[in-house]
Amino acid sequence: MRTSVAIIGAGPAGLLLSHLLHQQGIDSVVLERRDRAYCEQRQRAGMIEHGVVELLRNAGVSDRMDREGLPHDGIELRFDGRSHRLDFRELTGRGVMIYAQTEIVKDLIGRRLADAGQVLFEAQATAIEDIETDHPRVRFTHEGTEDVLECDVVAACDGFHGIGRATLPSAVARTFEKSYPFGWLGILANVAPSCEELIYAHHTNGFALHSMRSDEVSRLYLQVPADTDPADWSEKQIWDELATRFELHNSDWTLQRGPITDKAVTPMRSFVTEPMRHGQLFLAGDAAHIVPPTGAKGLNLALRDVSLLAEALTARYGSGDTTLLDEYSDTALRRVWRAEHFSYWMTSLLHAHPESDEFDRRLQLSHLNHIADRPAAATHLAENYTGLPRV
Amino acid sequence: MRTSVAIIGAGPAGLLLSHLLHQQGIDSVVLERRDRAYCEQRQRAGMIEHGVVELLRNAGVSDRMDREGLPHDGIELRFDGRSHRLDFRELTGRGVMIYAQTEIVKDLIGRRLADAGQVLFEAQATAIEDIETDHPRVRFTHEGTEDVLECDVVAACDGFHGIGRATLPSAVARTFEKSYPFGWLGILANVAPSCEELIYAHHTNGFALHSMRSDEVSRLYLQVPADTDPADWSEKQIWDELATRFELHNSDWTLQRGPITDKAVTPMRSFVTEPMRHGQLFLAGDAAHIVPPTGAKGLNLALRDVSLLAEALTARYGSGDTTLLDEYSDTALRRVWRAEHFSYWMTSLLHAHPESDEFDRRLQLSHLNHIADRPAAATHLAENYTGLPRV
Repeated sequence: MRTSVAIIGAGPAGLLLSHLLHQQGIDSVVLERRDRAYCEQRQRAGMIEHGVVELLRNAGVSDRMDREGLPHDGIELRFDGRSHRLDFRELTGRGVMIYAQTEIVKDLIGRRLADAGQVLFEAQATAIEDIETDHPRVRFTHEGTEDVLECDVVAACDGFHGIGRATLPSAVARTFEKSYPFGWLGILANVAPSCEELIYAHHTNGFALHSMRSDEVSRLYLQVPADTDPADWSEKQIWDELATRFELHNSDWTLQRGPITDKAVTPMRSFVTEPMRHGQLFLAGDAAHIVPPTGAKGLNLALRDVSLLAEALTARYGSGDTTLLDEYSDTALRRVWRAEHFSYWMTSLLHAHPESDEFDRRLQLSHLNHIADRPAAATHLAENYTGLPRV
Repeated sequence: MRTSVAIIGAGPAGLLLSHLLHQQGIDSVVLERRDRAYCEQRQRAGMIEHGVVELLRNAGVSDRMDREGLPHDGIELRFDGRSHRLDFRELTGRGVMIYAQTEIVKDLIGRRLADAGQVLFEAQATAIEDIETDHPRVRFTHEGTEDVLECDVVAACDGFHGIGRATLPSAVARTFEKSYPFGWLGILANVAPSCEELIYAHHTNGFALHSMRSDEVSRLYLQVPADTDPADWSEKQIWDELATRFELHNSDWTLQRGPITDKAVTPMRSFVTEPMRHGQLFLAGDAAHIVPPTGAKGLNLALRDVSLLAEALTARYGSGDTTLLDEYSDTALRRVWRAEHFSYWMTSLLHAHPESDEFDRRLQLSHLNHIADRPAAATHLAENYTGLPRV
């Protein structure tokens, strides 16, 4: 098999890249080790930055998002018995879209197949070879047989555990990492969201987040110790703890309870690999970087990466100019580090760290009060949250 | 002896309080354990917030400061071979004044004595008694004899090691603390400042600060391990290390070297006592709270405390209304915690923490770049640095 761009991974990054390249007349093949049903069902993030909404619209893949997504113009911060709304529209002129990553994946798979795009499910990449030459190759197994995909460029959009990052020579790659002693216990519940916007709650027991997937499905999170087994939390315990952390006794809304259909613990990790390119191998999304979920930057970073990469490949296949490809890693990493800092900052602001003391908690509260009181501090949060136009 | 307000400590806080009360016709006595020459010579901070400049002007004690002080409208951040000026005037409409605490103390002592104020030097307070009654007393020794100062109210402006905080009943007092594994090696040098504004430098070797006391005297600092003996640093080593951390090879200015007249290591500590009032005992300044010097908030907080306290005592002795006195601790602590957070934040932003790794350093650099690039982030720093009008 031969193509121009071999893409490993049919997550949102790999699929959008394949679509963007197709729009520019550039041929690609997507290799995905899972089956289609799995890809279309895995639960991930659900907040899309203003600039990424524009990106999806410009790419012509936003119809269902624009119909079914929930445009949000702000979030609510709850802390110390106080509630404060951050009005993103007023602070930055921008809002965000609530639309699940799963739905973006469905939309993109549908579109790629409708455009006769080559997306091979259950195709496991086993080796990426000769990336330092102009003729790299991806070896893979598909339907029980081994095959080879010859190409000009390999785009590894295959996540944290993928073969893409593992292929970077260790003499070249540098990694940066931070782990957190807590994770998020996330639930999906078949109940209408209890309020229209996201609520980020700081509480001595730990962080809690009220979110939603749609008008009928709520998505809620509780900070829990990193090694928590979701089975240890009963439905009642989860709802009771959410009520405690949202300080409902002090509020004018009610937490609507409903049947929990999904329950999982997300670990929290910060991770960056540099560079994001070696030879003809380019990393994008979780293959190169992980952020803790506070701030919801993971999906957005992944889509921004492939937007840059598509633009750079378009220049290469068009005029032959490789400047953007050569700059890809540096350009992408500026935004990556901005998002790493923001995600770490939001995490530190809102979580109860097991090693923190009352001094740290007072600093958090002073910081939260400051964000509630001063437009500059609020704008700092809002413009990072809704997505910086350039970094 | 009897007075209305017994003030312990002839630092800037105690002296300004005594002066402000005098202006309202309220009698006070200042007890200071050191002699006058010591008080007028100890080297402390030298940056005065916009609002505190106004406070000193309104109190009629700013003549020499307005003549000799250096008004500054910004600072420079240096990091990663990059230099960025923060224009405070443009970002906040406010500037700051560079004028040494020592000079404020001289001005205030001169003024208190000219107004026949009672400032007893070498008067060591040994006990504060009956603070839960309307007739508290301060026992002290002066010129070899024991004496008692009867009063209505005791204002403890006697610093971190003073008797004021020690007198708060332990059942009432709550303390919050953070120590840092580094300190500042500070020098005074008889040489004109190398540039007009302060330079805050982030470097892998550690933080460095270029500052000044006057047109003829430079004040410079190097981050050093907490247990550093200043004698271990030769003059040449100090200047060389400053040049390294300011990355002079990458700059259009020259570091002017001159004879070092003072060399000392300042420890770094964050500390808060709550409440700042018990019965008729009121704490102000370092007696209640310490901040690390990054951000230069210590002197400013102390003067803000006594401004609040003078206003509250004026109401009490005027209309008899004790509302402001009753609110003093809560009101003062809001600004204290804001300054604690800002000082911690500036410290974390700029220092090399011995336990931090390359991930943390990249976060610092992304944060510094963000402050240089985005007005909201710059304004957050600028408005905290120049002093928030209200907290």
